[in-house]
Amino acid sequence: MTTIIDGKAIAADVRAKIAQAVTAMQSRHNVQPALAVVLVGDDPASHVYVRNKGIATEKAGMKSIEHRLPVDAAEEDVVSLVRDLNADDTVDGILVQLPLPGHISSSRVINEIDPDKDVDGLTEVNAGRLILGKEGLVPCTPQGSVIMAKTVRPNLSGLNAVVVGRSILVGKPLSMLLLAENCTVTMAHSRTADLPAVCREADILCAAVGIPRLVKGDWVKKGAIVIDVGINRIEEQGKTRLVGDVDFDAAKENASAITPVPGGVGPMTIACLLRNTVVAAARRRGLGAVDV
Amino acid sequence: MTTIIDGKAIAADVRAKIAQAVTAMQSRHNVQPALAVVLVGDDPASHVYVRNKGIATEKAGMKSIEHRLPVDAAEEDVVSLVRDLNADDTVDGILVQLPLPGHISSSRVINEIDPDKDVDGLTEVNAGRLILGKEGLVPCTPQGSVIMAKTVRPNLSGLNAVVVGRSILVGKPLSMLLLAENCTVTMAHSRTADLPAVCREADILCAAVGIPRLVKGDWVKKGAIVIDVGINRIEEQGKTRLVGDVDFDAAKENASAITPVPGGVGPMTIACLLRNTVVAAARRRGLGAVDV
Repeated sequence: MTTIIDGKAIAADVRAKIAQAVTAMQSRHNVQPALAVVLVGDDPASHVYVRNKGIATEKAGMKSIEHRLPVDAAEEDVVSLVRDLNADDTVDGILVQLPLPGHISSSRVINEIDPDKDVDGLTEVNAGRLILGKEGLVPCTPQGSVIMAKTVRPNLSGLNAVVVGRSILVGKPLSMLLLAENCTVTMAHSRTADLPAVCREADILCAAVGIPRLVKGDWVKKGAIVIDVGINRIEEQGKTRLVGDVDFDAAKENASAITPVPGGVGPMTIACLLRNTVVAAARRRGLGAVDV
Repeated sequence: MTTIIDGKAIAADVRAKIAQAVTAMQSRHNVQPALAVVLVGDDPASHVYVRNKGIATEKAGMKSIEHRLPVDAAEEDVVSLVRDLNADDTVDGILVQLPLPGHISSSRVINEIDPDKDVDGLTEVNAGRLILGKEGLVPCTPQGSVIMAKTVRPNLSGLNAVVVGRSILVGKPLSMLLLAENCTVTMAHSRTADLPAVCREADILCAAVGIPRLVKGDWVKKGAIVIDVGINRIEEQGKTRLVGDVDFDAAKENASAITPVPGGVGPMTIACLLRNTVVAAARRRGLGAVDV
């Protein structure tokens, strides 16, 4: 029987643990972790994301702070706001909602964030800490992917992991996380000579390329764990559907465990954002490790 | 015929190009790049390394600056010196010779270096820029390894690269560099389940583990390029010898090209340090790209 890895259930579990950690932090240390979100402009999708993050933050017992700037805000205004949030000792996490308007350098704004408050894990310093094996804040989607794989196989040591896609948001950090779990990690991508053959070697196969159903059923080794990070909107039989980078129906015949789309990696992302916020709060306030 | 990749000759070529770039920089912009080296304590090997780096720097036409601090220097003194060098506009590169005495945090001192002057590529920011694909300064040994591989195969795109060893100084940055060359990259290590089989898949096989002759001849695919980063001192037949992580004599029967030890990657390291210094000088002084 193939296990369908239930992202909603695992995310709910992570959130419950976070809520417990927040409660403990309040009762023991009188600290309420706070996440500040910076939103520039009027992008409707971004407004929805920010609202959802705010709701989830408050549900977890943390403080949600929203800063909205007009679409014509100057880069200096955004930088100045980030600096204020860095200096504000009551703020534990800072998230700048992307994309920013075209006249603002995302790279500059992101790298102004105090790395210890960078709950999206997007600063150069946190990327560096990840490759250097230092304590840092790890991007949410790859973090969620590893948590999901470990629900079916708690010890990944020695397994062959193949990560298809080498984006800076998912593919590369996910490869580093799997390496830290002592997997033998292969980073594959569009220039890979024989992608099906490379995928067939994988005990853990992760797809993060943004191509609907790229990974076919016969690319999956019998018994492999398949983590599908893709979320692609396609038109099929007159309907709009969300599908992953893996041909789910065919792949599940070979996989021992597989994440569905939707309901797989997606729900883990906000859960890991909350996780990073509580971890950041504990670290920067010197409260010791939190078990989330 | 197997090509023995001649590290000394390639390093000499890189150094000659650097000297040309330095001459051009002086005549066109009246700028002499300067490398500052910080040496703390009395370690004899470190003194030799620092002297060699100084000689090589001056031979390339650059200015070499040495700062020596006593073995009991306080961490704050070293940090303060690094900050002075950061602020000194005539200094293009800063190198803190490792190891530092035990009472000083190497990590703290290294991360005080201005990333744009960090010619060893050891700061968290430069590690982050490497994984993020941004312009930065890349550690010298992995940089030299890629230069050597490209002398026999200028376009590495689509090749299977296997990197054995996942150190932060060599294995991980080398994997990232090979990925940027569009290789399919496998990161293998001591927990890899079947290391010989993984190595046999490599078109480019890089060994960086520090185990004498770990990689056997029959681990090398016919026609592979072998880059041996190991430098191990062993006693053999009553003599002290330097050998690599690859069984050279056996491996060269299968390889199309292979680096020897000594005379392979070793000589490239200082050449790449000089390269980083001239690149740093050009960038931070806004002089445009240098062809080195």
